[in-house]
Amino acid sequence: MAAYKRHIDTDSISELTISRLSIYLRCVDQLLEAGLETVSSQELAKRFNLNSAQIRKDLAYFGEFGVRGVGYNVRELRQYIIEILGLDRERRLVIVGAGNLGLALCHYSGFSKGNFLVVGVLDSDPTRIGDATPAGLLVEDAERLPEIVTQRRVDIGVITTTPAAAQAVCDRMVQAGLRTVLNFAPTRVRAPEHVLAKTVDLKVHLEELSFFLAHAGG
Amino acid sequence: MAAYKRHIDTDSISELTISRLSIYLRCVDQLLEAGLETVSSQELAKRFNLNSAQIRKDLAYFGEFGVRGVGYNVRELRQYIIEILGLDRERRLVIVGAGNLGLALCHYSGFSKGNFLVVGVLDSDPTRIGDATPAGLLVEDAERLPEIVTQRRVDIGVITTTPAAAQAVCDRMVQAGLRTVLNFAPTRVRAPEHVLAKTVDLKVHLEELSFFLAHAGG
Repeated sequence: MAAYKRHIDTDSISELTISRLSIYLRCVDQLLEAGLETVSSQELAKRFNLNSAQIRKDLAYFGEFGVRGVGYNVRELRQYIIEILGLDRERRLVIVGAGNLGLALCHYSGFSKGNFLVVGVLDSDPTRIGDATPAGLLVEDAERLPEIVTQRRVDIGVITTTPAAAQAVCDRMVQAGLRTVLNFAPTRVRAPEHVLAKTVDLKVHLEELSFFLAHAGG
Repeated sequence: MAAYKRHIDTDSISELTISRLSIYLRCVDQLLEAGLETVSSQELAKRFNLNSAQIRKDLAYFGEFGVRGVGYNVRELRQYIIEILGLDRERRLVIVGAGNLGLALCHYSGFSKGNFLVVGVLDSDPTRIGDATPAGLLVEDAERLPEIVTQRRVDIGVITTTPAAAQAVCDRMVQAGLRTVLNFAPTRVRAPEHVLAKTVDLKVHLEELSFFLAHAGG
């Protein structure tokens, strides 16, 4: 098994490359389910409607591990992508905003399965504090964010507040020492350079469907 | 203003290209906010950490409309992308599954602003039917899906049920005549070829943060 570069210049890897790695991981999981042991970049490309040159380029960032003419060993490829994405380590999440979206995410399987674990759901609304969430946690006071981040060794802060509250919550997450923030409030949030604050815009998915409707005769 | 090809071979355009068009649209909105009138692909690339060759290639699918040496007129570029994505037409959504996620989406601004409009929230649970949603709609019986699709001219079906119910709901949406389905249940759904059924996996965003934590010393 060839080694990939462990110390990667993250600046040179675009957000889109990382998104594609997530897509490749899902593809590889499907190949394993289907019982395949090796796969070429051409085959990967064809099966999943991706570009084979792009696949080779994306994976080349991390060193060579395909065998020319044979392709990738599917299990090794999976393990590589998991290591590259850091999915071999537990990552603990705290959700701030116990409205519908916060409650939905705290029992969304992707957020509390595998290596991700929701360890707290917080809100500043006294009428919500103490409520049981569908996942069995109790909603806690958002004032307790700093101690919860420290005591429960939280890695990722998830914002599901109103747009108006999002920036202040992001600032408090950064102050509490979090270096990664996932914002679901439909507004941009700003964070210092050492922090990765990503805003999820669910509308992009509708735009893709809209494209299909527009160009497939709709 | 140069014309772009109105009848595009959608098969030749990858899902990733469409996602990038959504990203370009957000970039262009930021440029307009900042008061810029023209932008080159290099500038777009630098500002938003994208690849300029990729940008030119993506936009070239739709015909030439950049001026060599000058770049794109920002307002024209915005209008082109909006037309390409079909965002110049109203698209009506019905949400099936009035749990936390369904209720969150029915008042998520991206889903009921601009050209998208939620016109129904349905559930099969009698204890939920008749409940008021945060957006002011009443939860309706999922049995009424076919008539609601027809009467309210629905374009897009959104699935926010449990994973176990998702495929049956997708099948009923297809039977009701919907050609685009957005599935938020964490399971794959299958649909006939003439239907675009897209599953949103919110975990990909966590994977990106995980990458950052793994490679920025976390």
